[in-house]
Amino acid sequence: MTKLKNDRFLRALLKESVDVTPVWMMRQAGRYLPEYRATRSKAGDFLKLCKTPELATEVTIQPLDRFPLDAAILFSDILTIPDAMGLGLYFAEGEGPRFTNPVKTQADIDKLAVPDIAAELGYVTDAVSMIRKELNGRVPLIGFSGSPWTLATYMVEGGSSKDFAKVKGMLYEQPAQMHKLLDVLAQTIIAYLNAQIEAGAQAVMLFDTWGGALTTRDYNEFSLRYMSQIIAGLKRENEGRKVPVIMFTKGGCQWLEAQAESGADALGLDWTLDIGLARNRIGDKVALQGNMDPCVLYSSPERIREEVAFILESYGKGSGHVFNLGHGIHQHVDPENAGAFVEAVHELSAQYHQ
Amino acid sequence: MTKLKNDRFLRALLKESVDVTPVWMMRQAGRYLPEYRATRSKAGDFLKLCKTPELATEVTIQPLDRFPLDAAILFSDILTIPDAMGLGLYFAEGEGPRFTNPVKTQADIDKLAVPDIAAELGYVTDAVSMIRKELNGRVPLIGFSGSPWTLATYMVEGGSSKDFAKVKGMLYEQPAQMHKLLDVLAQTIIAYLNAQIEAGAQAVMLFDTWGGALTTRDYNEFSLRYMSQIIAGLKRENEGRKVPVIMFTKGGCQWLEAQAESGADALGLDWTLDIGLARNRIGDKVALQGNMDPCVLYSSPERIREEVAFILESYGKGSGHVFNLGHGIHQHVDPENAGAFVEAVHELSAQYHQ
Repeated sequence: MTKLKNDRFLRALLKESVDVTPVWMMRQAGRYLPEYRATRSKAGDFLKLCKTPELATEVTIQPLDRFPLDAAILFSDILTIPDAMGLGLYFAEGEGPRFTNPVKTQADIDKLAVPDIAAELGYVTDAVSMIRKELNGRVPLIGFSGSPWTLATYMVEGGSSKDFAKVKGMLYEQPAQMHKLLDVLAQTIIAYLNAQIEAGAQAVMLFDTWGGALTTRDYNEFSLRYMSQIIAGLKRENEGRKVPVIMFTKGGCQWLEAQAESGADALGLDWTLDIGLARNRIGDKVALQGNMDPCVLYSSPERIREEVAFILESYGKGSGHVFNLGHGIHQHVDPENAGAFVEAVHELSAQYHQ
Repeated sequence: MTKLKNDRFLRALLKESVDVTPVWMMRQAGRYLPEYRATRSKAGDFLKLCKTPELATEVTIQPLDRFPLDAAILFSDILTIPDAMGLGLYFAEGEGPRFTNPVKTQADIDKLAVPDIAAELGYVTDAVSMIRKELNGRVPLIGFSGSPWTLATYMVEGGSSKDFAKVKGMLYEQPAQMHKLLDVLAQTIIAYLNAQIEAGAQAVMLFDTWGGALTTRDYNEFSLRYMSQIIAGLKRENEGRKVPVIMFTKGGCQWLEAQAESGADALGLDWTLDIGLARNRIGDKVALQGNMDPCVLYSSPERIREEVAFILESYGKGSGHVFNLGHGIHQHVDPENAGAFVEAVHELSAQYHQ
């Protein structure tokens, strides 16, 4: 394999020394970029983009051609897994994801099995290989999956949800059934992420977008437990290098101590907790990724710079910080502001790594 | 004034001894009740309900006639204030609140003034007086307002928002302008809540529904600071009794220590933090209100009972706990389950007050 020209991202995740703080943006390949909108419009629809390795590669690379980002992330969707399990994913225009066959009953759950990754999700691993080839060692490539709990919310609700009535109804009333669903998802995610790693993903991230909707007890039992199982089942070394794992529970900053015991190398942080406080709580155990409010990108380059400086100062000296937004970049952000953000991180962070 | 027959709620807020843990439900007068739907359908629309004291009184009392709740809460909406400021509140069917004249510019903010409460919001204080009369001492009546930050989000976005692009754009780019808006809102809320207290509200609650969308620094500067100002400006005694203040920032459990310094007598908790841990952190300073996940009401009476038992045990012995949901009751909940919840709190809590 080609030698990595820029490995800051991987080094920071393992708390090894770096010259400047590495930075990438969740959803960096996305609608805020005109070139993304052009490719998507050429593709016709979003799923076509995900399922066509050439197009997924194209949009994955786009933000790297604009900004000096320190990592690429596979362009895909967390709902490829339920789709591969036969739920029939589709995107209704302006309405978000939907499933033709949501999971409603015990019988629906009994029918679910770990899909054949090569047969059902080969388009994802093909995209990973193709992106790696295209990157040619520029920066590392991140693979990812949704967490079991987060995938379960979509599978049971049949799409997005505001109050999680159905999935929480099942969790509270039929916990054994919920565990069966989460278990088959955890097994699938292990196989899926290992296939991404074997195809060339150099780090992987678990997105627990809806873990923050749970109580402490239920977060531990229905979300964190399965993420820990997954991490224990992953291939943690490839191409002679450690494959770091990042775990991110949005709205989960009250549970950082428990998350730090999961086996993850790094934890994602949304913007509601000062990263310096988070480092005090768990920074001796894991690296941290985050945590600027994505809405700061709606302001000016000067204001963005100020906020970057504040977060860098809050984290303080030394490695173990991957700069990122606390959630995906919003679609109406001016790409110039995203550029100012990336530039500010590199420029202002050097002093913390001397 | 008539003597209160049941003052558990007020006593618990002040950490005075009680026989059982008092309980009420946020949004207890609401769409899950068929009798509410009937009154609303008679009224025609939601705003008519709020603006007609007889109808507001009717729906405020409805849940008390069904369940042995320990408090009534004024039926109203947090957006009555911006409406009184001339923003023109309306509810588009199935779309949530909207304003005809959202706040977009510095000039829009300069035009805002503290409204004449009697002239513009007399329908609210009339409802308070009428409800007090109708309650005739059964239980205390809670008045309320949205927090300045929460009201500002609706005023600047023109309605509900997912990512707060406009209001956070203003906060980050024009902080002085944002402070001017929050300041006129804080002054208005002081006058509004004092008018509710003078009309008979025996406790008041500040709903900071969107404070949890802020960073720690911005929460302190743009939300908590104004809530503390409001609390300092309130009439804290009426009818020879203390008027307790409850402050609730949804998604704000990481900031409990700061909230406990606000002057509030009690803090609301959503369900993401164990109430026992919250009590350990700040229970010597303030009472706590919460914190069952409203989705537990989608399960069975047995499961609801189990969750109530878990929360009561977590809080432990002694006063200072007002049982509630961690957010408003959902509209598709079976009223029988709400009844099972209230009953379980009274029945299972007696042992903690011996």
